[in-house]
Formats: sequence, C-alpha cells, structure tokens
Amino acid sequence: MTHIPKLQVALDHSDLQGAVRAAVAVGHEVDVIEAGTVCLLQVGSELVEVLRSLFPEKIIVADTKCADAGGTVAKNNAKRGADWMTCICCATIPTMAAALKAIKEERGERGEIQVELYGDWTYEQAQLWLDAGISQAIYHQSRDALLAGEVWGEKDLNKVKALIDMGFRVSVTGGLDINTLKLFEGVNVFTFIAGRGITEAEDPAAAARAFKDEIRRIWG
Amino acid sequence: MTHIPKLQVALDHSDLQGAVRAAVAVGHEVDVIEAGTVCLLQVGSELVEVLRSLFPEKIIVADTKCADAGGTVAKNNAKRGADWMTCICCATIPTMAAALKAIKEERGERGEIQVELYGDWTYEQAQLWLDAGISQAIYHQSRDALLAGEVWGEKDLNKVKALIDMGFRVSVTGGLDINTLKLFEGVNVFTFIAGRGITEAEDPAAAARAFKDEIRRIWG
Repeated sequence: MTHIPKLQVALDHSDLQGAVRAAVAVGHEVDVIEAGTVCLLQVGSELVEVLRSLFPEKIIVADTKCADAGGTVAKNNAKRGADWMTCICCATIPTMAAALKAIKEERGERGEIQVELYGDWTYEQAQLWLDAGISQAIYHQSRDALLAGEVWGEKDLNKVKALIDMGFRVSVTGGLDINTLKLFEGVNVFTFIAGRGITEAEDPAAAARAFKDEIRRIWG
Repeated sequence: MTHIPKLQVALDHSDLQGAVRAAVAVGHEVDVIEAGTVCLLQVGSELVEVLRSLFPEKIIVADTKCADAGGTVAKNNAKRGADWMTCICCATIPTMAAALKAIKEERGERGEIQVELYGDWTYEQAQLWLDAGISQAIYHQSRDALLAGEVWGEKDLNKVKALIDMGFRVSVTGGLDINTLKLFEGVNVFTFIAGRGITEAEDPAAAARAFKDEIRRIWG
C-alpha cells in the first residue's frame, strides 16, 4: 500500500530567532516541524517549547540524535512538547528503549523514536531496533558528505526500500529539492525532510507548497 | 611513556543552575570541565560560555556528540569557548574533518576533536579518524548499558590499549568511581571522566580530590 509521503521542515538555524521566523513562515504548510540538532545544541529545548506553543496540532520532532541517557533526553524534550525524538544509530538498544519508554510516558501513542542512520549500520542492528519497538528510521545523506560531492543513488534507494520492507516507516533527508523527489518515485517514503531547500527559499511558504505539490503529483 | 591521567568532570545536569553550581564546586579540582550532552541539549551552548568565563584557564569540552554539520557545531561551540568537542563515531569523516578545521580556526592548537565510541566501530574506521587528524577517542560504557547491568571488563581494557597503541589519547568514562580506577592500572589512560561520581557526592570537591589522589597513587 502506498500513501502520500509527509513533508517535514528541519529548522537548522544557529539562533532561536531564525528558527522561529522560519517556523512561522512555513509551519502551516508542512506536516512535521523539526527542531534541528544544530539549533537544539545552541539554544536548548526551549525551541521545542516555542514550536509546540505556535503549532499545537503539528507533529514536533526533537532531532537530538541522542546517543546516551535516552530516558533523560526524551523526558526533557517530551515535557516541552516533542512527539518524536531521534536517536543516533550507534546508540545502544538500552538507550533507544529508554528513550521510547520516556517519550511514550509523556506523549502516549503519539510518542515515537526515530533512528538516524549515519555511517555504517547493518540490517541485523536494524532488526534489533524493530524488536525494541522502534518504528521509524531516517535515511541520510549527511550534509558534510553532500558538500564532499556525494549524491543520492541506486544504492541509497535500495537501502531505503529494504528498511521499508523490514517494517520501518522511513524518512529521507539530505540535499533534497523539488527536482530530487522524483528519484524516489515508486518508493513508499514516509516523510521527506527538507531544511534550507525550504527555509532559505525566497518565498519559504511557496517552496513548501511546491514540495507538497510535487509529492502529490508523484504519490497522489 | 606513562603520564598521570587527567581528571574530567562531566556536567550532565538538565538545568543550567545545577550544572553551574557543580562547576563552581569542583571546577578548580579537575583538569577538564565538560559541558555534558544532556545539558547542552537543554540549555544550549550558553553553558559553554558560562564555564569559559568561570574557568578561563581550564580545558572546556563541549560534549555535543556531533553527527553532522561538524563545521557549524564546532564553530558555534568554539566561539563560546570550547577547546575540545566530541563527534559520535558513526559521523562521516567529512563531518569530523569539518569539525576539526572549525575548532582549530577558533582555538588554535588548543582546539581538538574527540571521537565518542558507541556501539559497533572498527579499528579500520579508527585509522581513518587518525588519518583525518583526530587525536583523541573516548571509550564508554554507556549509562544505559551500565543500568542494564554491563561492567568494565578485560574486553574493554584491551580495546582501550589497542586504541592507545594506534596513537590515540584515550579517555574513559561510564560508571567510574574511586574503586574502579585500579582496573586501569598499567594502562596509559589520557583522561578519566566522571560525572555523578563527583557531582552527586556529599562533598563534590573532596570526591574530586579523592579521584586525583587515587590517580596519583596508581600512575604517579
């Protein structure tokens, strides 16, 4: 069964004001609003609280890339309104399990943990994440790898498909723009995550709508 | 050549006030003061700035566990006074290299990147980190793994020794107390990192001094 992929905007600013301005400009156009790692490390989880207050109905993600102390980090962010939180793929299973328990305690069924795939990971590890109750994975091209010249390719698409076949809802991110969406045609992507491709457009709201239109054109 | 290992205190509080109170209590007793990940994600890099202002001569570490956007995260933290910053081991080499470049641009020779070892990593990867100019690694027992019952063992010590033999300065952390230091006797540990073992002691400054005394007794 295919569905129409969601659109998530990542707020990767280094200041609260920039992130909030971008959120106000595009938040109503997207399905999911992400407090980005760079910004969380700069201003803390106050960003999550501001996003929750501005968008009470939207899904808010805290992109903590949590590697340890999963219960504490998840509780801290869920209390400020995060529905989803990310764990880095090299975190231990107890860290992911603690994060999942904590976010569900605060947010109920809405609370979910997403595993961020960086570097080398294996399908055996991925099965352990599923077994621990983790339902989402995020497939990346890292920003630095993109700057170093890497691009989306068949190898990436095959990994995304394999994760979907395993049972994950898979988000994809890294250098996405309107023109790269069609690379994923036929793939049951859960969410497309875009940052600067939306927030640094001349008209960010129009850019978000263009993403949504292209998603509907391909998957609708 | 052996040397006397340094002592690093990790400020893993969820609030700025708690972290600053702990820093004031023990900062002068230790060699390195760490802005912990949990606290950075809660209050942002203002914590680094406060620590730098309180301890102009100490080494300050921003434990960002950076997985992406290494240049931006390193610049943000180095500008506020961090000498060292951590990258997670599953970050790509371009991320680590960008972080190293940015921290050295701000902090000169004092600026260093530490690779945080979580989950599965290989010595082949470790060689790539060395080749990229990364000089430090941090060997962990994750807090959640410790809570799940894991302990320091021969397997851990052998990995620490192998990394030292490769050329890394290796810090160790995770559930350390005065009694576990002697497990590392004969191992050329660069820095012991303790958090609650110091900050939640009845007399944190005395606890830090007891760590230092035991380190001197074993390695002095």
